[in-house]
Amino acid sequence: METDSTTQKHLTANELYLIDAYWRAANYLSVGQLYLRDNPLMRMPLRFEHVKSQQLGHWGTSPGQNFIYAHLNRVIKAFDLNMIYLSGPGHGGPAVVANTYLEGTYSEVYPAITQDETGLKKLFCQFSFPGGISSHASPQTPGSIHEGGELGYSLSHAFGAVFDNPDLIAACVIGDGEAETGPLATAWHSNKFLNPATDGAVLPILHLNGYKISNPTVLARISHNELDQLLRGYGWTPYYVTGNEPNLMHEAMATALDEAINHLQQCQFAARHEGDTTRPRWPVIVLTSPKGWTGPKKVDGKPNEGTFRAHQIPITISATSPPEHLTQLENWLRSYKPDELFDEHGRLVPELAAQAPRGNRRMGANPVANGGLLLRDLHMPDFTDFGIGVPAPGSVLASDTQVVGQFLAKIISDNQSPRNFRVFGPDETLSNRLEAVFGVTNRQWMADERENDQFLASSGSVMEMLSEHQCEGWLEGYLLTGRHGLFNSYEAFIHIVDSMFNQHAKWLKTSMELPWRRKIASLNYFLTSTVWRQDHNGFTHQDPGFIDHVINKKASIVRVYLPPDANCLLSVMDHCLRSRHYVNVIVAGKHPAPQWLTIDAARRHCTEGIGIWAWAGTDDGAEPDVVMACCGDVPTLETLAAVSILREHLPDVKIRVVNVVDLLKLERNTAHPHGLSDADYDALFTKTKPVIFAFHGYPWLVHRLTYNRANNSNMHVRGYQEEGTITTAFDMTVLNELDRFHLVIDVLDRLPQLGNRGAYLKQSLKDKLVDHHYYITRHGKDMPEILDWQWKS
Amino acid sequence: METDSTTQKHLTANELYLIDAYWRAANYLSVGQLYLRDNPLMRMPLRFEHVKSQQLGHWGTSPGQNFIYAHLNRVIKAFDLNMIYLSGPGHGGPAVVANTYLEGTYSEVYPAITQDETGLKKLFCQFSFPGGISSHASPQTPGSIHEGGELGYSLSHAFGAVFDNPDLIAACVIGDGEAETGPLATAWHSNKFLNPATDGAVLPILHLNGYKISNPTVLARISHNELDQLLRGYGWTPYYVTGNEPNLMHEAMATALDEAINHLQQCQFAARHEGDTTRPRWPVIVLTSPKGWTGPKKVDGKPNEGTFRAHQIPITISATSPPEHLTQLENWLRSYKPDELFDEHGRLVPELAAQAPRGNRRMGANPVANGGLLLRDLHMPDFTDFGIGVPAPGSVLASDTQVVGQFLAKIISDNQSPRNFRVFGPDETLSNRLEAVFGVTNRQWMADERENDQFLASSGSVMEMLSEHQCEGWLEGYLLTGRHGLFNSYEAFIHIVDSMFNQHAKWLKTSMELPWRRKIASLNYFLTSTVWRQDHNGFTHQDPGFIDHVINKKASIVRVYLPPDANCLLSVMDHCLRSRHYVNVIVAGKHPAPQWLTIDAARRHCTEGIGIWAWAGTDDGAEPDVVMACCGDVPTLETLAAVSILREHLPDVKIRVVNVVDLLKLERNTAHPHGLSDADYDALFTKTKPVIFAFHGYPWLVHRLTYNRANNSNMHVRGYQEEGTITTAFDMTVLNELDRFHLVIDVLDRLPQLGNRGAYLKQSLKDKLVDHHYYITRHGKDMPEILDWQWKS
Repeated sequence: METDSTTQKHLTANELYLIDAYWRAANYLSVGQLYLRDNPLMRMPLRFEHVKSQQLGHWGTSPGQNFIYAHLNRVIKAFDLNMIYLSGPGHGGPAVVANTYLEGTYSEVYPAITQDETGLKKLFCQFSFPGGISSHASPQTPGSIHEGGELGYSLSHAFGAVFDNPDLIAACVIGDGEAETGPLATAWHSNKFLNPATDGAVLPILHLNGYKISNPTVLARISHNELDQLLRGYGWTPYYVTGNEPNLMHEAMATALDEAINHLQQCQFAARHEGDTTRPRWPVIVLTSPKGWTGPKKVDGKPNEGTFRAHQIPITISATSPPEHLTQLENWLRSYKPDELFDEHGRLVPELAAQAPRGNRRMGANPVANGGLLLRDLHMPDFTDFGIGVPAPGSVLASDTQVVGQFLAKIISDNQSPRNFRVFGPDETLSNRLEAVFGVTNRQWMADERENDQFLASSGSVMEMLSEHQCEGWLEGYLLTGRHGLFNSYEAFIHIVDSMFNQHAKWLKTSMELPWRRKIASLNYFLTSTVWRQDHNGFTHQDPGFIDHVINKKASIVRVYLPPDANCLLSVMDHCLRSRHYVNVIVAGKHPAPQWLTIDAARRHCTEGIGIWAWAGTDDGAEPDVVMACCGDVPTLETLAAVSILREHLPDVKIRVVNVVDLLKLERNTAHPHGLSDADYDALFTKTKPVIFAFHGYPWLVHRLTYNRANNSNMHVRGYQEEGTITTAFDMTVLNELDRFHLVIDVLDRLPQLGNRGAYLKQSLKDKLVDHHYYITRHGKDMPEILDWQWKS
Repeated sequence: METDSTTQKHLTANELYLIDAYWRAANYLSVGQLYLRDNPLMRMPLRFEHVKSQQLGHWGTSPGQNFIYAHLNRVIKAFDLNMIYLSGPGHGGPAVVANTYLEGTYSEVYPAITQDETGLKKLFCQFSFPGGISSHASPQTPGSIHEGGELGYSLSHAFGAVFDNPDLIAACVIGDGEAETGPLATAWHSNKFLNPATDGAVLPILHLNGYKISNPTVLARISHNELDQLLRGYGWTPYYVTGNEPNLMHEAMATALDEAINHLQQCQFAARHEGDTTRPRWPVIVLTSPKGWTGPKKVDGKPNEGTFRAHQIPITISATSPPEHLTQLENWLRSYKPDELFDEHGRLVPELAAQAPRGNRRMGANPVANGGLLLRDLHMPDFTDFGIGVPAPGSVLASDTQVVGQFLAKIISDNQSPRNFRVFGPDETLSNRLEAVFGVTNRQWMADERENDQFLASSGSVMEMLSEHQCEGWLEGYLLTGRHGLFNSYEAFIHIVDSMFNQHAKWLKTSMELPWRRKIASLNYFLTSTVWRQDHNGFTHQDPGFIDHVINKKASIVRVYLPPDANCLLSVMDHCLRSRHYVNVIVAGKHPAPQWLTIDAARRHCTEGIGIWAWAGTDDGAEPDVVMACCGDVPTLETLAAVSILREHLPDVKIRVVNVVDLLKLERNTAHPHGLSDADYDALFTKTKPVIFAFHGYPWLVHRLTYNRANNSNMHVRGYQEEGTITTAFDMTVLNELDRFHLVIDVLDRLPQLGNRGAYLKQSLKDKLVDHHYYITRHGKDMPEILDWQWKS
């Protein structure tokens, strides 16, 4: 390997010694975490019983990350930078823990892990030990906003962190394995969405150590020329640091980092003080260093450093391993000269401790990475001001999303200085009919503009890129650093980020268990363009299953809302944007639809989350013959239409209408904090009467929530059954047997006491379904009685 | 806009006329599909009633795709190419339908859509009409293997199609919107995995029409220089075609395509006949043309062609739209001169019809795109030959995946000529302990190789890139073109492809409804490194919810298996690899674990899919006191350990052990083809006895499957509750209350008749749990009684 070198030395001999010693200390602590349960300072000869009986963890990436961290410390001090560190490669835990320990943050957060031999021993023992800490930069790690257990999101998180944080630099280490993922491959394009004046900067450090688990990596195995073109093609300016000889590498890294920081600050200066409005070509560092750098060269006769074999534990120590393994480990540990690094008590020697930045400049202590510390409440307008008048149920048509768009527009305009609220989406904000937001803001866009573009500006509150991964990653980064936001998406395609939601939900759950981590704003998904209204998109766009996915996560974290109309949507949106540390999923339609509740009634209904709509039912407070429940806008419409049919034809049937906004009300209160007690549930659904439940999503979800209720055997749920094509909303309900006619038939099938009257009505509804089929096949639209249907009280 | 031009003309005047006329015909048919319900040849003046009452669909991408298709037809004929067409941009339906109609394929597949005025009218009417065809290249479209409803997978599908198809060229149109997605952004790197000698070639055509729904696209708004660097950095050689003047564009496209095909064939020739083993720099076409090209320049005073306004319906025609809209539409339609293109009967004139390739060379007729036509059964070795000896239940430890790895190795080696089986995975084949496959094959890799690399070769049956999206997309493309395969992945991270699974399952469901589409091989997911064994990965790697996601899809498509041991896994794998047109999910562990069934018993058990393990129970065929059910390897182990405790301490309790391999046996036979009848279910689970069900995944899934069974109220399910960290498998079960001690306590809680004997045992088990906690916290491993536990018959 060759090393880029400069003729003029960048570091003095003393600086070189100090930065190398600091690096050695971090490497020593990393190896210690992997191996040692005793003798943490190697003050004794290494014995078998000093070594953990099970060695678990990952060495490969650690020395490279230690190298980067030490050099970032240097530039933080030299330039007085406000910087955080994102560890993209999986399993960089030993490195980030080592460094936050060395800089002192770790002991401040975890006082039991002291800066002495006892603390070191504890630090080593807890790593990858049952009940201890994991091998990633997990929520337990101070300074981390990115865990990296699942790979691919570091760069998106880094950009999310610096939006509207003009003083912040997010240093983002990207592993060359991670770089192969789709989300990371498109995240490089984030530079087209970052404003150099009003946002901070991301400094990516692409770490080419050449191997994944057991394969080489793509980016390490293309020519230098291809790699250079790729990064420049993505719009970055690369600075290369390549080699393996520590002193040369320190010099090269220091040079490259100084150049990169100068470059970065020049981009900011030009935008902030010279009126330069062009998109800068930001710097990126490419560090090529051996996997498992400074580790054993050979183990059991096979090359280790610089190969895939350095990925996890280079040398295994067990009762059956060759005795020379222990010697080899001892030599490896001593190669870092721990006696030079730690004093007699086990404390980092002062001249090395002085290498770290001070106070909140330490990357482990930066409050940005514990975003709840900085979180301010949104200035929230009164949502009832945006309510629409509903003189009588069903008397008004409105687009729910258009109405809430007005509310969002006001929130955006009321939270501009400092800006701490953004709307993210994959170019669907207009399609989702949130156009009102473009009355007060624009889409932030730093690539070229042309005549006839709309709502683009170099700074704006709406972030749109056709990548759900990017939208999610940006938003997560934005939230984790103490701001607020909303992701609006087509319902079906939100599954693209299922796994990212998983990781964020796990982060929230774990961070809630850490008293020093403050709560952050909730991750709010606003799903529209739903399964029932895919008139011109069809079957591929029909999937209401994200909520099934979400509710498997910890009950303390997840919330799901399906408001039946615009006023309810306003109330739900208000609630979600004020909430903390949840994942909220809101599902609502965008097409004009009948409105049911006044804004006051909506607020009351949404506060309860579930309730009887007495105005719609015919049970008059008495025990009903049947409960007709509904959840979601289209199911609510079909349920009310079904109730009208029953009211007209069988006025003596006592119907109770229950509407569900807060889906998790259906769970038992022992399973979810929002869940109803059995008594409350039974009071709504009865213990013995048939329940016909019209549900927005897959019907089995309601069964999964209610299987343990007294009335389970009477619960009959209609929902989406994976039947659909390009057709009308009403025909979609027919294809899935959720339409008014099927719902009435469901009721009739459960009320045999109606005798011939029921049978007669059932036959006439079956005829209606046939009529519908013929009519839509011929005319391509619904029968007038469907189109013109209106609720009559 | 500028147009690249060459001094020497490439097309003769007549060729230019013909290709332009063919393009006009396709454009005309595209506009016709969007607008017309009558007067399909415009033989009458256009009247309001000729226009569809609702105009749905997407114009923007169509003319560009028509242009590409016409030019591909030319090179197919000129070079006698075996080519298929993938329509990456969303909503290219009008274009691909138009072209397959023009070439005659459409009428062959759908005889009612004749090559005359009547057929044209039907063609137009069915588009985006309820019950008609959708606006994508859906399964209904002849020649399609890629629908494009959800964006991002076209290039991966294209590569999957050409692996082991050396004569095939997959022409892949990539929209510049789609190009922003993560999966597409990394799919460009597929060229590092394609062997030019043994695989076919992909010809990407990046179509820069500048806009998504309402935003510009990133790749259309960076400099030419950046775009060029990006594509070259990805390893491709771009050929540019830029402009809007049709004649110049035809010339430029013909030139570029001829050059690209020559380039591509030169790459193949070098690899196949000149011994060149280097990775070629394949050609890519970059076509920059206006969105909605040839459409109206302005509508309602606003520019349309070349802007985002051309995305869907440029001119709306309704009762309230301005009357000039109709005139404008008429002028637009007539601008293509339909009278020149179609004869008096409405048939494409012969000289234009002659422009299309013949027979199976037509891209709509290529049998590769109806893969079931070409599908051959795998040569399957007898799986029982790979069974391991199990002298007594629990007497042998083995890694299930290592055992099945031997079977997979034999399948790989038995299916090499022609090779039609591949294993895909994100660099986890070794980690998942399928190392036996590397005894017979390698990982296919065309990037640079170094000393110390392992199991890499320019041709091999294993495809590994650190992108689940790529693995899934490649495999789907491979299956859709008539081959077989397996995706092996960590269980938790398979959620990365949730949405891709959705789209594939929808494709399978729809294609089953089309008699002309033949069944293809099943999509097989092999999930290991499961939730229960994340000893050194921890919480981020724990998610068993993919099966929850899968079973929401159509019952006719999905199958889920959780074999309890290696012999069962062999039987299940054999079954899945022989199956057709399903999505099979197999979940199994990789760590050494007790083996329960002989290979014969395993075959019988897996054939049933669910059954009583009489050897484990104590009910002796009589009605039991309690049913202990288990599904998954770790739950089976804990259940049997719980049974041992009960057998030892309370030998009079009659226990029935039921093991579930085929999860969907739990559903009713009316809901799933594998489902048990109520009688069969009740015979296993009883109608009245407590059932303690130890489940591999989230416990609610079992409730969702069994809520409507007679014994629902006695069903008590233990599973993963989102509790976990770095710890032992046994401790993981304790954290989630699935361990043997909790299971016995669950039994005791339901058998009050045991009185003090039960209470005493319960207390001793609670003590055990405390002991466990202290032991593992101190020693980092399980108590000897756990480690040494063995089943005793």
